Amino acid sequence: MGTEHIVRSFAQELQRLSNLIAQMGGVAEAQVEAAVKAVARRDVGLATQVMQADARLDAYERDIDAEAVRLLALRQPMAQDLREIVSSLKIAADLERIGDYAANIAKRSLALAQLPVARPAVAIPRMGRLVESIMKDVLDAYTERDVQKAIAAWERDEELDDLYTSLFREGLTYMMEDPRNITPCTHLLFMAKNMERIGDHATNIAETIHYLVVGTPLALNRPKSDGSSFAVVSPLAAGLPGALAEALGVDEASNDAM
Amino acid sequence: MGTEHIVRSFAQELQRLSNLIAQMGGVAEAQVEAAVKAVARRDVGLATQVMQADARLDAYERDIDAEAVRLLALRQPMAQDLREIVSSLKIAADLERIGDYAANIAKRSLALAQLPVARPAVAIPRMGRLVESIMKDVLDAYTERDVQKAIAAWERDEELDDLYTSLFREGLTYMMEDPRNITPCTHLLFMAKNMERIGDHATNIAETIHYLVVGTPLALNRPKSDGSSFAVVSPLAAGLPGALAEALGVDEASNDAM
Repeated sequence: MGTEHIVRSFAQELQRLSNLIAQMGGVAEAQVEAAVKAVARRDVGLATQVMQADARLDAYERDIDAEAVRLLALRQPMAQDLREIVSSLKIAADLERIGDYAANIAKRSLALAQLPVARPAVAIPRMGRLVESIMKDVLDAYTERDVQKAIAAWERDEELDDLYTSLFREGLTYMMEDPRNITPCTHLLFMAKNMERIGDHATNIAETIHYLVVGTPLALNRPKSDGSSFAVVSPLAAGLPGALAEALGVDEASNDAM
Repeated sequence: MGTEHIVRSFAQELQRLSNLIAQMGGVAEAQVEAAVKAVARRDVGLATQVMQADARLDAYERDIDAEAVRLLALRQPMAQDLREIVSSLKIAADLERIGDYAANIAKRSLALAQLPVARPAVAIPRMGRLVESIMKDVLDAYTERDVQKAIAAWERDEELDDLYTSLFREGLTYMMEDPRNITPCTHLLFMAKNMERIGDHATNIAETIHYLVVGTPLALNRPKSDGSSFAVVSPLAAGLPGALAEALGVDEASNDAM
């Protein structure tokens, strides 16, 4: 604006950018929490709210991108200041993706709400609590520029991967027990996958905090433990009753669970 | 390096960054193609290669990030030059994610290769051809700085979403027909989802090209048509034989397909 009367210092502008990220983080956190609640309570109204509110995160990302590019052009920053701005671009992109996953969980909860309650649904709030606490720690670590806290949160993502892998195998088993479980369990598996991806984006943010504060990439190497992609569960291994297995033509040859 | 003898012009440095993106794009494209081939041919060796080669894309992203930050600090660019550098950060992040999805498709193909051939597997090469052609167009649009080509590719993502939604419903139906289809079809659904996500990242790149060339965000608004998240298929709607449906305790009350 040509008529801008307030002249801010560069430090104030960086602080403002950082506050925008913190606010966007708060909205993303609330979206994840509400999406998980919508699944647990089969709350269609809440799910609809989450889907609508996703546009707020898109708007935050656009604002943060525009502000970051403006500061790069105007202030020609170096060192830590430059890292602040580059980090804000990266973190906003991760938070926007987290919002997309929350909206997709809400969307799938609408399909689930039409169906009988599926047992593995209890695992969603369990994954939800873990992912919410990882997100909270990562966002606190950002506000406090606390690398140790960021690394601690980054390490907890492994629990989430393990929870996801066991839920994946469990879901396959329920589907084999009763075909009425197939649609709800498939949506639950995708919801769990979304939660696992939210965790991955939270670890991306933790890595960005390390780069921001220390100036170098995070050198730790945690092997990615997505066991679910290898999971094979056969109808017999799933303990399908003998007569039913016979009716379905299941034979020993297909029993190659790993 | 203090002993650097070659002094490059800024224009040369930007061209080098742009070439790095083009190379990374080529590797990502090859990874997607190889992953789809590994599924279609049940080729375990090729799948393993794809999983191993993913590290190359991670290395490209690190190099591009480092080079972009170096140029921001050293050259303090403005306008189009600044957009070139910010765009390279964004595109590298999208290509790295595309690589992750290709590696996950390859990983799941290892589980699939142990199982009987599942019918919807033919849909994977079909989605593969579409996503490969969208990626090719987007990468050409980047090299040629061709906004119209980028928008045309961006619009074709809708076909991919439609293909994914129909594959999702088809997969649910096969699972209901025979529990032996449950594990392979679940992996196929996740592969199809990965392909749909690769398409989303390709459209992100198309949007970045618009920003890079025109200087403003892409104002078009294509409604996101992920119908699969709402999909409900009941065992009866899936045409489960009457006697079997009875044995499984399926009744009309659960027949709420939409």
